[in-house]
Amino acid sequence: MKISVIPYVGATRPELTQDKTVVVIDVLRATSVIITALANGANEIVPAVSPEETLQKSLLYNVGEVLLAGEQQTAKIEGFDLGNSPIEYNSEIVSGKTIIMSTTNGTKALNSCLNAREVLIGAFLNAEGVVGELLDKKDIVLFCSGTNNNFSLDDGMCAAIIIDGLIKRKTNVVELSDFAHLLLNAYYNNSNISKMLQSCYHLNLLKQKGFEKDVTFCLQNSLYNYVPKMNLINKSIK
Amino acid sequence: MKISVIPYVGATRPELTQDKTVVVIDVLRATSVIITALANGANEIVPAVSPEETLQKSLLYNVGEVLLAGEQQTAKIEGFDLGNSPIEYNSEIVSGKTIIMSTTNGTKALNSCLNAREVLIGAFLNAEGVVGELLDKKDIVLFCSGTNNNFSLDDGMCAAIIIDGLIKRKTNVVELSDFAHLLLNAYYNNSNISKMLQSCYHLNLLKQKGFEKDVTFCLQNSLYNYVPKMNLINKSIK
Repeated sequence: MKISVIPYVGATRPELTQDKTVVVIDVLRATSVIITALANGANEIVPAVSPEETLQKSLLYNVGEVLLAGEQQTAKIEGFDLGNSPIEYNSEIVSGKTIIMSTTNGTKALNSCLNAREVLIGAFLNAEGVVGELLDKKDIVLFCSGTNNNFSLDDGMCAAIIIDGLIKRKTNVVELSDFAHLLLNAYYNNSNISKMLQSCYHLNLLKQKGFEKDVTFCLQNSLYNYVPKMNLINKSIK
Repeated sequence: MKISVIPYVGATRPELTQDKTVVVIDVLRATSVIITALANGANEIVPAVSPEETLQKSLLYNVGEVLLAGEQQTAKIEGFDLGNSPIEYNSEIVSGKTIIMSTTNGTKALNSCLNAREVLIGAFLNAEGVVGELLDKKDIVLFCSGTNNNFSLDDGMCAAIIIDGLIKRKTNVVELSDFAHLLLNAYYNNSNISKMLQSCYHLNLLKQKGFEKDVTFCLQNSLYNYVPKMNLINKSIK
């Protein structure tokens, strides 16, 4: 089993995801939201690259079937039903709905790996579930979405937990890229990951903007077992 | 002082280097070669993106003035004067010469940051010298060249040594990107960097191909104090 890591959206290249099993990770907050929404009974998630595309895609559905969701630079988009706080996505609101979602980094990551063999959605919230799905895969790419073309340590530590889980549960040889080694090294040397993450740029930005509850929620390890997958033809996530 | 890190050539974007002080790092082996050649009296280094461009650029010089240098996938290019082993670049061979050089990753990195405010050349070989040059800079980017669009841990640990040096010598606040934090964390938690680097993909590839002496040479910390700089108009390095 080979494991490599893409550090942020702008760092991907077509050859890095071609025919690979890709796990898209955007802990704060896109993939945490997607996992929460689907675990709470949403019908599907449709990623969009911009608020305009979100509105355009919603026209294909009947009124009442869809919810418009997303953020721009951490803030909820005016007129949309939902922002990017996973706590909003409870079963009363999302059950049975299609959610069309535009976020700054996460949906861009999803749209940039359509040449993969398969695309899974990962976060701390379902890390153990992701490990279970990956056990029989050969060529794995952990795609950290990052923030505005910079690596985010929260995504990286989520990748490290998945790598650690694979090493512990695999009997075969696990071949790590240098970046995967670096993440694992940091993970093994920091007994308190939440404390380590307090230096993160994006995490602190969210706290400053009043999203502390989101941060606490998103850092929960394996609250759900559900691992969403992207349909590579119509791009919907279920 | 802000410090960020670009993990490999394919991960750069124009906005990441625009008007920044960029240090290009390709420990194994391009920047180690450039530093060695200039410290040993070479007149200048002219980077080229391919063997063809190397030959083309050499036509602008008189015979005897230039040496053709470079590698493709670790091997010396047929008919060229020099490969990519820093040990070859002794003063008897390089003194007073212009060296036109094509390498797989290092020269591509150099060619992709021409919008920077200034570009310095760094490696373990001149790490302390680089720290000295950076002390009064505001916005620093450590550009790790990597290997075939993957991060190389040897470049990363060289970046970490430079970050550590800046923190120790700066009295001002040093603001680190998440990736810079990650590298520094690994550096502080591994007392034996050479041992840590034994897991590196590229380092092991070079050893397998018989370049063990190069690896040992390139991992020497601050053998030279000289910090080459790239002229952003004609791209030559002095």
